[in-house]
Amino acid sequence: MTTDFGDDGPFAGVMKGVIYTINPHVNIVDLTHNITPQSIQEAALTIGVNYHYFPKNSVHLVVVDPEVGSGRRPLLVVADEHYFIGPDNGVFSYIYKLAARDLKVIHITSEHLFLKKDSPTFQGRDVFSPCAAWLTTGLDVNKFGEAVLDYHVIDLPSPVRLSDLVLQGEVIFIDRFGNAITNIKKTDIADLQEMQPKGAVRIFLKGRDLQLWSYYSQAEKKGISALINSSGYLEAFIYRGSAASEYDILPGDAVKVDLSP
Amino acid sequence: MTTDFGDDGPFAGVMKGVIYTINPHVNIVDLTHNITPQSIQEAALTIGVNYHYFPKNSVHLVVVDPEVGSGRRPLLVVADEHYFIGPDNGVFSYIYKLAARDLKVIHITSEHLFLKKDSPTFQGRDVFSPCAAWLTTGLDVNKFGEAVLDYHVIDLPSPVRLSDLVLQGEVIFIDRFGNAITNIKKTDIADLQEMQPKGAVRIFLKGRDLQLWSYYSQAEKKGISALINSSGYLEAFIYRGSAASEYDILPGDAVKVDLSP
Amino acid sequence: MTTDFGDDGPFAGVMKGVIYTINPHVNIVDLTHNITPQSIQEAALTIGVNYHYFPKNSVHLVVVDPEVGSGRRPLLVVADEHYFIGPDNGVFSYIYKLAARDLKVIHITSEHLFLKKDSPTFQGRDVFSPCAAWLTTGLDVNKFGEAVLDYHVIDLPSPVRLSDLVLQGEVIFIDRFGNAITNIKKTDIADLQEMQPKGAVRIFLKGRDLQLWSYYSQAEKKGISALINSSGYLEAFIYRGSAASEYDILPGDAVKVDLSP
Repeated sequence: MTTDFGDDGPFAGVMKGVIYTINPHVNIVDLTHNITPQSIQEAALTIGVNYHYFPKNSVHLVVVDPEVGSGRRPLLVVADEHYFIGPDNGVFSYIYKLAARDLKVIHITSEHLFLKKDSPTFQGRDVFSPCAAWLTTGLDVNKFGEAVLDYHVIDLPSPVRLSDLVLQGEVIFIDRFGNAITNIKKTDIADLQEMQPKGAVRIFLKGRDLQLWSYYSQAEKKGISALINSSGYLEAFIYRGSAASEYDILPGDAVKVDLSP
Repeated sequence: MTTDFGDDGPFAGVMKGVIYTINPHVNIVDLTHNITPQSIQEAALTIGVNYHYFPKNSVHLVVVDPEVGSGRRPLLVVADEHYFIGPDNGVFSYIYKLAARDLKVIHITSEHLFLKKDSPTFQGRDVFSPCAAWLTTGLDVNKFGEAVLDYHVIDLPSPVRLSDLVLQGEVIFIDRFGNAITNIKKTDIADLQEMQPKGAVRIFLKGRDLQLWSYYSQAEKKGISALINSSGYLEAFIYRGSAASEYDILPGDAVKVDLSP
Repeated sequence: MTTDFGDDGPFAGVMKGVIYTINPHVNIVDLTHNITPQSIQEAALTIGVNYHYFPKNSVHLVVVDPEVGSGRRPLLVVADEHYFIGPDNGVFSYIYKLAARDLKVIHITSEHLFLKKDSPTFQGRDVFSPCAAWLTTGLDVNKFGEAVLDYHVIDLPSPVRLSDLVLQGEVIFIDRFGNAITNIKKTDIADLQEMQPKGAVRIFLKGRDLQLWSYYSQAEKKGISALINSSGYLEAFIYRGSAASEYDILPGDAVKVDLSP
């Protein structure tokens, strides 16, 4: 389960009640309920980089849904031997990109699967949870509705190669520690390094030159620094500090990786 | 599990350790550990409106217990094919009201079921958790103690019909988003509407006239508004804002639903 | 699971994904993810006083690891028919002390048990979680590595007997309610009382004379007070207040228990 409900209310708990009512033989994991409220971008990245740590045939229930109650469609996505259930608002955009080959996106229309006490304000409980639970019982994906191709995709900015040795990306997300996660991947930097195997990697953000470390504690007392984070993305951080608040870093800020001599 | 322990400490976790020690074959769900500390009213409503989303024969463990350690009795309540375990302080008042017909309230006196390392400050761990766990193993409810009739009930304010077309209720609870939940139910408004099927529903709170919407995002930039929330109660809210702090709304504030022309 | 990751991110959730991928037939309990960041002392005490509430043969996964990525060793500890997995930074110091007789500490070197996508910044996911999961499948502890004796132990301050009737300890930890937990145990006070069975117990902290109660609500409107908490330790508190902020109490502050007439 991945939602923006926070940990305070009974919302995630009651969804689990609904799930266990349909299938008591299931393990439920909270990936996080603390997606920044209504941040489809953050939810999309969070599920995109983490789903593959779960067992094959897991059902990933993602409820970050600013338009709950309006007409947007509930979706069931099959990709990479995993299942995803959530609203058609782009929250599965990384999944669509990663699993482009064997992707199936179904518009859930089988309303008999929903809770009868359907409330327009809490489809996480009344629509998405029962569908996720029925899926875990082995119900065939074709029983949920028809495949669609016009699902909503959000813009996922890709880094741009400014030259053979310079890559420009951007900050896509600030986490709760003030770390600035960028859209530049470990593999993007490796590609650059093939051009200049012995070149020093220089990283620029907000006019600063960031040193690249392997793990956080190496950068103790070194000011703003960078590393490849545990999801494989380049991240700017201050050890035991907040890079974002100290340097006014915002999503969209440009980040440059430069291997030129 | 429904408690006011918060998510910071090891309190809920250690209760689960106790439960799994007695019965490892059980699913445990956190409904919430963020009941406002010592708010019996909030806990009573939370469990009252949510328990029926859980499977029949669920055991609902509710530990909101300002008088822990004093003489108040531990209770086992059987109602509507669900079980409830918690202190005799009124926390099950909605359950008593909803399930008046087939209600059984047992004062738990079988102290051999409790943990031996009984501490007067943490009966959630030492008394309530082991009793809940034993119940899930199939232990007969009559083995826990004797039925009582003098259990504690808290005052649950009911809305008052001021006239055929006017109902007055009150705010019973402010949630963490600043939404003001009232004691007026969807069905109360439906009853009014039977008298005046075509009348516009007007809602008054703190001298404001609130428009009634179906879901939150409809009220974008509309100021303080109202809807029937996912529990079926009338709720005042500001989309992406805090109605309670903007209008100084407090529990007890009067709310009027008026269908007069 | 006991970590300092907080509840906001997907960190604990993704660890559970890793565990269920290896062994889906396991119950996972969050003891807490809100250890004060990087406080080995607090983590050591939390696991030390709570592990025995879990079933025998439980695996306790403790990831409070300021030096993640550096050379410190991953450990598997067998003690008192429980298993513990975490970094060699002293986080199991209470376990070493409590279970001195039948203790086995193994330096985990079997890297084939780790996730292949090993990241230096998230060994909770890549090293500790898979090891914990393999352990629950019944894999022999000797398959994880070799026993070591030079494991890291942190200083656990013990109370000092100033005289037959006076014991001096210290505050070791402030909890989130502002309660000051000391290193003086219920049994330490019982030992004193054997010398002076009828003597009144007087407790001194920050120049104040604290009354000793059995449970929190007894101290209503009594100012700063003391009790033996649910873990068996002497604790200073203010009922519905914060003792620590009102009296500037910090870890290390001296606490005296005095039974002299």
